[in-house]
Amino acid sequence: MQGLHLTADLYECRCASGLMTDSARLRDALLAAVRAAGLTGVAQLFHDFSAQGGEGSGITGVVLLAESHVAIHTWPERGAVTLDVYVCNYSADNTAKAHALFDALAESFAPQRRATHALTRGAQ
Amino acid sequence: MQGLHLTADLYECRCASGLMTDSARLRDALLAAVRAAGLTGVAQLFHDFSAQGGEGSGITGVVLLAESHVAIHTWPERGAVTLDVYVCNYSADNTAKAHALFDALAESFAPQRRATHALTRGAQ
Repeated sequence: MQGLHLTADLYECRCASGLMTDSARLRDALLAAVRAAGLTGVAQLFHDFSAQGGEGSGITGVVLLAESHVAIHTWPERGAVTLDVYVCNYSADNTAKAHALFDALAESFAPQRRATHALTRGAQ
Repeated sequence: MQGLHLTADLYECRCASGLMTDSARLRDALLAAVRAAGLTGVAQLFHDFSAQGGEGSGITGVVLLAESHVAIHTWPERGAVTLDVYVCNYSADNTAKAHALFDALAESFAPQRRATHALTRGAQ
């Protein structure tokens, strides 16, 4: 279960606003990025807060991976996104794939500032 | 979007094995813990790797919250669990609720060892 959990808090995102407000568009982009990175999506869930009420007007999207999960929260009213890419190295070292997916997703939002963090998990 | 992301890697879990292998049981426990902590679940997704193939025999469970998300991965074959509780303080300070949920969920697996981490997110 040893793995790597990468997080990014993205600010001043200059992507097309649809990527932060249109759940179908975000889902397509996220699933394409997972495939491009060579990771394996097994299930997905997206929740649109603008349509159903909540504390903001953004989207939460999660893709469950064979290797763990990806989670994205968008705050279009603030031009901000938080991103999690967590992969375990159960039967292979997925570190490079995790970084590739993380970098591609972060770049897709065109943030002008970001705070990132890397946490090794399950290593004991 | 300022918030708190708590993670735990739990080892030598001595809970009833069903909590790590029965997705309905894990879902019920997770949703009850979310409610007990005073947080708001808006959607949920559970994937059973033993039933559908994958790199392990455990379960991945995610509950999307109005306040962000909770994610659990179980590795019953290793007696281990990883746990994420991420809450944003959008319209209220949810720090205490996050810690309450995190502690309750971690304890429910009866781990003999654990590694925990707290990350402040979205603070810029």
